[in-house]
Amino acid sequence: MSFNTFGHMFRVTTFGESHGVAIGCVVDGCPPMIPLTEADIQGDLDRRRPGQSRFTTQRQELDQVKILSGVMAHPETGVQVTTGTPIGLLIENTDQRSKDYSEIKDKFRPGHADFTYEAKYGLRDYRGGGRSSARETATRVAAGAIARKVLPDVRVRGALVQIGPHKIDRGKWDWDEIAKNPFFCPDKDKAAFFETYLDGIRKSGSSIGAVIEVVAEGVPAGLGAPIYAKLDSDLAGAMMTINAVKGVEIGAGFGAAELTGEENADEMRTGNDGTRFLSNHAGGVLGGISTGQPIVVRFAVKPTSSILQPRLTVDRAGADTEIMTKGRHDPCVGIRAVPVGEAMMACVLADHFLRDRGQVGR
Amino acid sequence: MSFNTFGHMFRVTTFGESHGVAIGCVVDGCPPMIPLTEADIQGDLDRRRPGQSRFTTQRQELDQVKILSGVMAHPETGVQVTTGTPIGLLIENTDQRSKDYSEIKDKFRPGHADFTYEAKYGLRDYRGGGRSSARETATRVAAGAIARKVLPDVRVRGALVQIGPHKIDRGKWDWDEIAKNPFFCPDKDKAAFFETYLDGIRKSGSSIGAVIEVVAEGVPAGLGAPIYAKLDSDLAGAMMTINAVKGVEIGAGFGAAELTGEENADEMRTGNDGTRFLSNHAGGVLGGISTGQPIVVRFAVKPTSSILQPRLTVDRAGADTEIMTKGRHDPCVGIRAVPVGEAMMACVLADHFLRDRGQVGR
Amino acid sequence: MSFNTFGHMFRVTTFGESHGVAIGCVVDGCPPMIPLTEADIQGDLDRRRPGQSRFTTQRQELDQVKILSGVMAHPETGVQVTTGTPIGLLIENTDQRSKDYSEIKDKFRPGHADFTYEAKYGLRDYRGGGRSSARETATRVAAGAIARKVLPDVRVRGALVQIGPHKIDRGKWDWDEIAKNPFFCPDKDKAAFFETYLDGIRKSGSSIGAVIEVVAEGVPAGLGAPIYAKLDSDLAGAMMTINAVKGVEIGAGFGAAELTGEENADEMRTGNDGTRFLSNHAGGVLGGISTGQPIVVRFAVKPTSSILQPRLTVDRAGADTEIMTKGRHDPCVGIRAVPVGEAMMACVLADHFLRDRGQVGR
Amino acid sequence: MSFNTFGHMFRVTTFGESHGVAIGCVVDGCPPMIPLTEADIQGDLDRRRPGQSRFTTQRQELDQVKILSGVMAHPETGVQVTTGTPIGLLIENTDQRSKDYSEIKDKFRPGHADFTYEAKYGLRDYRGGGRSSARETATRVAAGAIARKVLPDVRVRGALVQIGPHKIDRGKWDWDEIAKNPFFCPDKDKAAFFETYLDGIRKSGSSIGAVIEVVAEGVPAGLGAPIYAKLDSDLAGAMMTINAVKGVEIGAGFGAAELTGEENADEMRTGNDGTRFLSNHAGGVLGGISTGQPIVVRFAVKPTSSILQPRLTVDRAGADTEIMTKGRHDPCVGIRAVPVGEAMMACVLADHFLRDRGQVGR
Repeated sequence: MSFNTFGHMFRVTTFGESHGVAIGCVVDGCPPMIPLTEADIQGDLDRRRPGQSRFTTQRQELDQVKILSGVMAHPETGVQVTTGTPIGLLIENTDQRSKDYSEIKDKFRPGHADFTYEAKYGLRDYRGGGRSSARETATRVAAGAIARKVLPDVRVRGALVQIGPHKIDRGKWDWDEIAKNPFFCPDKDKAAFFETYLDGIRKSGSSIGAVIEVVAEGVPAGLGAPIYAKLDSDLAGAMMTINAVKGVEIGAGFGAAELTGEENADEMRTGNDGTRFLSNHAGGVLGGISTGQPIVVRFAVKPTSSILQPRLTVDRAGADTEIMTKGRHDPCVGIRAVPVGEAMMACVLADHFLRDRGQVGR
Repeated sequence: MSFNTFGHMFRVTTFGESHGVAIGCVVDGCPPMIPLTEADIQGDLDRRRPGQSRFTTQRQELDQVKILSGVMAHPETGVQVTTGTPIGLLIENTDQRSKDYSEIKDKFRPGHADFTYEAKYGLRDYRGGGRSSARETATRVAAGAIARKVLPDVRVRGALVQIGPHKIDRGKWDWDEIAKNPFFCPDKDKAAFFETYLDGIRKSGSSIGAVIEVVAEGVPAGLGAPIYAKLDSDLAGAMMTINAVKGVEIGAGFGAAELTGEENADEMRTGNDGTRFLSNHAGGVLGGISTGQPIVVRFAVKPTSSILQPRLTVDRAGADTEIMTKGRHDPCVGIRAVPVGEAMMACVLADHFLRDRGQVGR
Repeated sequence: MSFNTFGHMFRVTTFGESHGVAIGCVVDGCPPMIPLTEADIQGDLDRRRPGQSRFTTQRQELDQVKILSGVMAHPETGVQVTTGTPIGLLIENTDQRSKDYSEIKDKFRPGHADFTYEAKYGLRDYRGGGRSSARETATRVAAGAIARKVLPDVRVRGALVQIGPHKIDRGKWDWDEIAKNPFFCPDKDKAAFFETYLDGIRKSGSSIGAVIEVVAEGVPAGLGAPIYAKLDSDLAGAMMTINAVKGVEIGAGFGAAELTGEENADEMRTGNDGTRFLSNHAGGVLGGISTGQPIVVRFAVKPTSSILQPRLTVDRAGADTEIMTKGRHDPCVGIRAVPVGEAMMACVLADHFLRDRGQVGR
Repeated sequence: MSFNTFGHMFRVTTFGESHGVAIGCVVDGCPPMIPLTEADIQGDLDRRRPGQSRFTTQRQELDQVKILSGVMAHPETGVQVTTGTPIGLLIENTDQRSKDYSEIKDKFRPGHADFTYEAKYGLRDYRGGGRSSARETATRVAAGAIARKVLPDVRVRGALVQIGPHKIDRGKWDWDEIAKNPFFCPDKDKAAFFETYLDGIRKSGSSIGAVIEVVAEGVPAGLGAPIYAKLDSDLAGAMMTINAVKGVEIGAGFGAAELTGEENADEMRTGNDGTRFLSNHAGGVLGGISTGQPIVVRFAVKPTSSILQPRLTVDRAGADTEIMTKGRHDPCVGIRAVPVGEAMMACVLADHFLRDRGQVGR
């Protein structure tokens, strides 16, 4: 990963800012002959789209994706397929409403990238955070939709498993619930609780953190590579690029620190279709290489710093001052991180699938 | 990061297995004119070296590093300095004792990379884990010692902050204690407790996990870059390449999920020498770019799976069987991860320092 | 360089096909605070634009570039500058006229990429050559215009120095002539000759090759790096990516094979402002690093294979057949390669300037 | 390619200087299960080894390679095979004779990298040219020997086709002659001529350039990728990293500039085993992708600048002076470039083979 590109064989380069004309990405290295239409991508984009409930930002964006290159109608079948050349994707910004930026133009919002962008580049795009805005994540979700098609037998799903101190009851995990509540929450009861809980947060002008879990099933054993292309290393790096993420863990994760060797190591037996693990503390990765078990990654999302309360800060001239966010307000930015986490998982897996095939030649 | 190389401008490529002739690395992109001798590197290697207490593996390795290239005596001063060309480093293996591998040659040790290497490559080096052995980390520690010299004003220190469920008392944090106990533990009292606790683990033939914290002070604001070269993303990926690491977090980390926006966002005031943050929940990174505050990273290390107790597994032929580790035994592999974590932090920071200088031209 | 991206610190990723909706690129790693408008880019694009004389393809494209991201008005001066984030550029295709492709859809045009794309990907975009079309070079010319602004003291200029067997008289070299004839030819008399000569080629339905020379003045000594980032290696690789290029040389080039050591090695004297070379057989690069002299690169462009004469070929089904190009016809594709060669030179130099600054810290 | 690494999937990183302890490289990404011993590598090294005739440098080096990692005895067959992990290779320097460097320590040798290394890094290794010495090429030849084993059906051979103005008679090309004369010359008669000719050059203390041709047969159609991973672009860049190379061409090369479209485009017919080309002006590459025909690359090597005649130069203090090389003298450095060119061809092809397999999945 470097600057605005990630992946080696399946490679994604993104561009665009919150309040520019458009955002987009180039997906390079995609295998040819994969059926691909805009509709295939739009579904995932719609899941990430803002303004779909009162619990996420009220910005209205259609997030309509256009495929600019890299596909054509198959000369025999007429089905639109990838050609093996770079896939250019474009999403126009439609709701970058012109508003008064005089307040934040010269003040650094605490907990935001304002101060650091300015420290690095000497200037920053104060309109909606510019490049540091979560708006960029739409382009990865689009790329992730393509990655999924590279791996038709792999199923990547994400879920919100914690808001603030409130964790879901894992015994009540039901993937079908995810689509039925605005939180991507697999625990029906906890979803109901979150509705009330987040309303309180929202009304008080506050915000709260969350934990997301992404699971990939159907990943063959053998993906990933020692030492600096470990699958879990690439996954950790990828998740950590998502806005507001402060921690990543795989399998037992931080909990593994509290386990003994006999508790933690997953024992093996031979089952009907190959090796079977009796548990999955490893989260599907041993020595940086997939085991064939589900890959399980969790990441923590901090609460947004844009809250409706005055905060101490400094301005560009160095004077002490205060700042208070106005307008759109996102009580739990973690919610919309679910499809983004899925996309990053899918992209990393597609990349490793191609790299493994290249080296080992399955 | 890719295969056995990490970094872009300050780039490290490692090679070697646990039981081969030698391990080593190539450090590429290092600036010229930096004073560098083998002694500069040996100090860090000695801190990682096995066999220094009963709490780590009893393998005896001198870990004597040789610089093969990339340095010369300065023509005027005579001081040995880097030349800007690749620095080749070699460490011979001296204690790869020939032992009976018949047991593990055909059985997969649970929790180890045995099964996955075999699944990927069709064979695996069963002698000491081959490439998956923590022995490889010696080469990164050597590279890290060079990285430190690229950043003379930055101080990178690591500490063990938890073993099993037992966390240190952060109020008793004393960096000077680190060198005084075999655990790199900054809490004197907890170090005394760990001595007894780990003896129990060791005698029972078990093992236990740990949490390590690495702190970098003196890092200037502005290192890191959106979006896929975020400093915290590179740090997370780097830490996750260390053997047995299952989770990484920065600043408040997973704890941030439980905080509100007003608790989490670090407020700012103007101090005597520039902007001052009133807290450091961010762990020194906002929007993927350093703030100038200390960079704080923690990672969880799972317990080693090599324990003196029989475990269910399968053999290469697919038959159910049991396995029990014999010989050298490492009750808490997390301990020796401390200097490795420091090295990875130093390498990532050196890389970002050069990348930032390249783009922005400080 | 890899797939559709080149450069390390100054990095360009392109996408788009001849007959798609649009082509474009992402320029990543550009330093911040560089004044940049669409007009700065349009000038170079206009020099490459097709349809400007009867000696190049009659395709009509305005090649109007849009900057989608990576710039903003400076908060104090109001001047539009780069922000350090990725610059997205878009050029819409306007003259991808719908024509009858039934002839070339199933036959491989000799000398074109038809056969190899099909061999690799299983299908190819037969509409105008798809990704293999020279249309893609517009995006690099756009990127090159930005690269020039990264290096304000460097002047990159290209010239056509040979068509078919006819070389210019180097004694008559006048840079001012370049803009005065449709060939970018610095020799006024030869330009007049080429007009008649190429008319003959064109009317006979044939085509002819050419040699282009690109010169960069003002490049400081010290750019480039051993061994696999040699400046001349990157230049050779970059020029060889241009459509139809079959050879690249630097300085004395292939002529150096015929020289003796005393003829070839450029002697040095001390001049008023530093070291002065008495000749430039090296073409401005020694040991892969710039000397401070002008960088001189030449490349050979083959004649286009699209000629108005029947040629033996095979079809997709493997049957022997013939093919003859109809419609637009480009008697000397080398002509329009001049601004493309300049762009590649500028991009490589900008990349090496940033890489050198990163490592050595000027 | 970047700094001291080249290749993406099959990746080579080299280190070491002319007069250091040792030189070496790391070959990363090599597929597993490939039989590999030191003897497999030694053969190619022996062909490049200096001191084998009076026409190359008299330095005596055994160039004995040691494999430090990445191989093991196959558990069933006992045959030593690659494991898929990085292969560390080491070659000790044995004849870095201590001599008097006072002359060249402070003077820049014209035509050498002395001036540019000093301009870049502030110092240079004056002992034998340090990193800029052709000694480094031994490590690539070693890597190339491994690359050949990745491509067992591909045959890569090189030949010297020109010394000074004297070209071989291509009608007399006999590959079997290559091993029978000290020039790798496929034309027996011209080889006899070169013996006398080069003796004259040598005795006069002069030197002369050469042209090398490398041919790869058996390369499947489909290797290479648009646009910035074109096979010919990677080959050009690779050859241009070889010491003293000033030009690279593929197929008809610079000659293509003088051809018409009907002369240049290779016509196709269907033969017994697929498509057959009636000529190979393309040199086996169309649109950056291999055609299945032999890949033909030529490169020009300048005469060494180390000649036994006084030359004008400056010293480090900036004063005008003269310099004359003493001691070992190499009348035609192009000769030993033949196995180096083969190695670079083999490495580039191996890399593209793995990249193609990764993306397209043959």
